[in-house]
Amino acid sequence: MELQVRLLPTIFFFFFFFFLTILQHSSSARVLTVSKPDRHDYAASARWLVSQNIWGVLSTLSIDHDGAPFGNVVSFSDGLPEKGSGIPYFYLTTLDPTARNALKDQRASLAISESPVGTCKSDPMNPTCSKLTLTGKLLLLDDGSEEAQVAKKALFTKHPEMIDWPVDHDFHFFKLEITNIFLINWFGGAKPITVDEYLHAKSIKVASLLQ
Amino acid sequence: MELQVRLLPTIFFFFFFFFLTILQHSSSARVLTVSKPDRHDYAASARWLVSQNIWGVLSTLSIDHDGAPFGNVVSFSDGLPEKGSGIPYFYLTTLDPTARNALKDQRASLAISESPVGTCKSDPMNPTCSKLTLTGKLLLLDDGSEEAQVAKKALFTKHPEMIDWPVDHDFHFFKLEITNIFLINWFGGAKPITVDEYLHAKSIKVASLLQ
Repeated sequence: MELQVRLLPTIFFFFFFFFLTILQHSSSARVLTVSKPDRHDYAASARWLVSQNIWGVLSTLSIDHDGAPFGNVVSFSDGLPEKGSGIPYFYLTTLDPTARNALKDQRASLAISESPVGTCKSDPMNPTCSKLTLTGKLLLLDDGSEEAQVAKKALFTKHPEMIDWPVDHDFHFFKLEITNIFLINWFGGAKPITVDEYLHAKSIKVASLLQ
Repeated sequence: MELQVRLLPTIFFFFFFFFLTILQHSSSARVLTVSKPDRHDYAASARWLVSQNIWGVLSTLSIDHDGAPFGNVVSFSDGLPEKGSGIPYFYLTTLDPTARNALKDQRASLAISESPVGTCKSDPMNPTCSKLTLTGKLLLLDDGSEEAQVAKKALFTKHPEMIDWPVDHDFHFFKLEITNIFLINWFGGAKPITVDEYLHAKSIKVASLLQ
């Protein structure tokens, strides 16, 4: 009996650190709501990259630098994972060059990487680390339009901080109307994928476990 | 004596999990070789972003899509942290559109975010999460030139995997000759910073501790 009593603190600390270890492992891993699709399913792979990323680089033609391609880090959303449409929406201010550029010339592209998702095991430029560039037109959505409401919901659920961004900063909702898709998700160069295949990709299989 | 012997396995496991906990904490934190500079030092802030990131989005004017801005995820290096020059070097293949675009029209920009560094506490588009766009000319370096050797060392030390990339894939070294710098590292819009200030930034203060 006395032995058991003396062992109690040790047993307590044993389990304390055991659970702490598990907890820390959980917090360092990224919670993937949807697992990486089969690499042969190009449309699902592209949609997965869009749904899992929260930021990318949006490139426009610079009015300040004589039409040079100007990439800019922006947050975006196509909706919550498993509820996304594949269409990237943005909340941009005309205080920033990208929105001003797009209002002059709509040509634009959004580039994203698998790297921030946390599933790459190689260099970000290794073809097994997926990357995607959606090329198209960056369109301003009419305030109060139905699609502006869709964009607002998609953005504010994935980027809750945006709700409090200053209203006097001339923020507006934009969308990228996709005309071309450049996907690398394995060796062998860009994969053939049409905009129609991308937009109508079947639901990505669900795997709500930690990866 | 008997009590001590019986306690030994428990004590062993106690320390085992204790060290495991510490180890996991270390591996989940990102090792920053150089701490984030004072935000008022724009040149140091920009150089820090370049030195700490290993990939970004390189935008060129697409020859396949009638001059549209084409962003592409690429690895880059300006040298090892504390030894970098601020000049981004790339190892690009003409099998990829970006190199082909640049050989037709050199205008380009490289966009990077603080987000992958792991020091952002807000949304990637919050101005406190730094972002940088370097605009300029994407130049092919002559194979065998002195600067190609500099590029090779900068890239292969930061991206060791590149050493084994297939030699028959027409990889070449490129550099971005910077003409304009767009830096957001706090509220209040883009910060004033010249290319000269950027290239001649004083050494960033060293802090080799885990952050």
